Amino acid sequence: MRTLYHLWLNPFSRKVRIVLAEKDLGFDMVVEQVWDRRREFLAINPAGDVPVIIEDDGTVLADSGAICEFLEEIAPEPPMIIGSPHERAEIRRLVSWFDRKFDAEISAPLVDEKVMKRIKGLGSPDSNVIRAAHANIHTHLEYIGYLAGRRHWLAGEEFSLADISAAAHLSAVDYLGDVPWADHDAAKDWYARIKSRPSFRQILADAIPGLPPPKHYANPDF
Amino acid sequence: MRTLYHLWLNPFSRKVRIVLAEKDLGFDMVVEQVWDRRREFLAINPAGDVPVIIEDDGTVLADSGAICEFLEEIAPEPPMIIGSPHERAEIRRLVSWFDRKFDAEISAPLVDEKVMKRIKGLGSPDSNVIRAAHANIHTHLEYIGYLAGRRHWLAGEEFSLADISAAAHLSAVDYLGDVPWADHDAAKDWYARIKSRPSFRQILADAIPGLPPPKHYANPDF
Repeated sequence: MRTLYHLWLNPFSRKVRIVLAEKDLGFDMVVEQVWDRRREFLAINPAGDVPVIIEDDGTVLADSGAICEFLEEIAPEPPMIIGSPHERAEIRRLVSWFDRKFDAEISAPLVDEKVMKRIKGLGSPDSNVIRAAHANIHTHLEYIGYLAGRRHWLAGEEFSLADISAAAHLSAVDYLGDVPWADHDAAKDWYARIKSRPSFRQILADAIPGLPPPKHYANPDF
Repeated sequence: MRTLYHLWLNPFSRKVRIVLAEKDLGFDMVVEQVWDRRREFLAINPAGDVPVIIEDDGTVLADSGAICEFLEEIAPEPPMIIGSPHERAEIRRLVSWFDRKFDAEISAPLVDEKVMKRIKGLGSPDSNVIRAAHANIHTHLEYIGYLAGRRHWLAGEEFSLADISAAAHLSAVDYLGDVPWADHDAAKDWYARIKSRPSFRQILADAIPGLPPPKHYANPDF
């Protein structure tokens, strides 16, 4: 069985978990406390981050983007990067939108301030950083609503890696109770559809010891 | 003719320019001053960054990762993401290494402090930021030397998008005179091979008005 090194609230690990489940590829999970900078882990991934996959044959895969493209190549069905070259470019553009822009503006600062600082003993959360992330999320929820309203799924008529990346980031932020769903009906409708997918059940079942999710987190009627 | 919206010292634009040249795909270039946040530009790329390509048929492509995958699909020869799924994953892992890690630690802070701050009228460079980037670059040059020593090119025996991404970032930093080549012979040998490629000639011919490159920048014997 392949092994996924991950962290619970890391959106990039969540993205890979959902892709593996969509493609019905089995995997075990091991938490890697990347801040320990464990020597054996740095030897297999010098970047020192998660997710990392070790395949049955011992091959190591690192970087969530490279991992998702790899999984698409070895297990093409059902496709997550689907369509013509133009349609595939649109999927990848949106994956990058969430993995770079949403991450930098929202998921990374919120997870860092509210969770990682405590784990690493770096003091209390910076309320200015949290306030900025809370302000930024509205634009992203509007964009999700706009895209899902015009296209059914974010990048087109088919469910794709763009939806998975967006849902991976949003689910981490939702675990912290920081998504203002009430103000964004269209994005909420799209996320309700995500929540009903079998591949998302594992994500909704996450329960980190000492940091339980809010009640609405796993609820399909939220 | 396709149009590339770019900025001279933007490594992601340079990466796309090199890929286009390797694949012998013609293009015109237009400088987009992204900090102006021009309304027409934001309408075609809400992320507001470069590179952006407009194809002959009017199709818009944004995000350098999505653009490079698109170009690989429409013009597979010569391949830049080459080999087995595992080999392709290694190429993409290294592209991400340079586009995320090298960018965050070196190219983005140096270009921001030394060039963008002046253009935007944001005051003088922060010497602490510049010093940190200068310290960080050694690890990356050692890694490049280590990979190129074991593999001929960075991701394997063949020249690939990993080399292009690394060279795109390094060339921007080299334009600022900030690469300590004298301390890193193996990385320098690899970069000399990059410099001799026809696809790199355009990059070496760059001369930004008011900001000339150092003499060694275009010199194959540097």
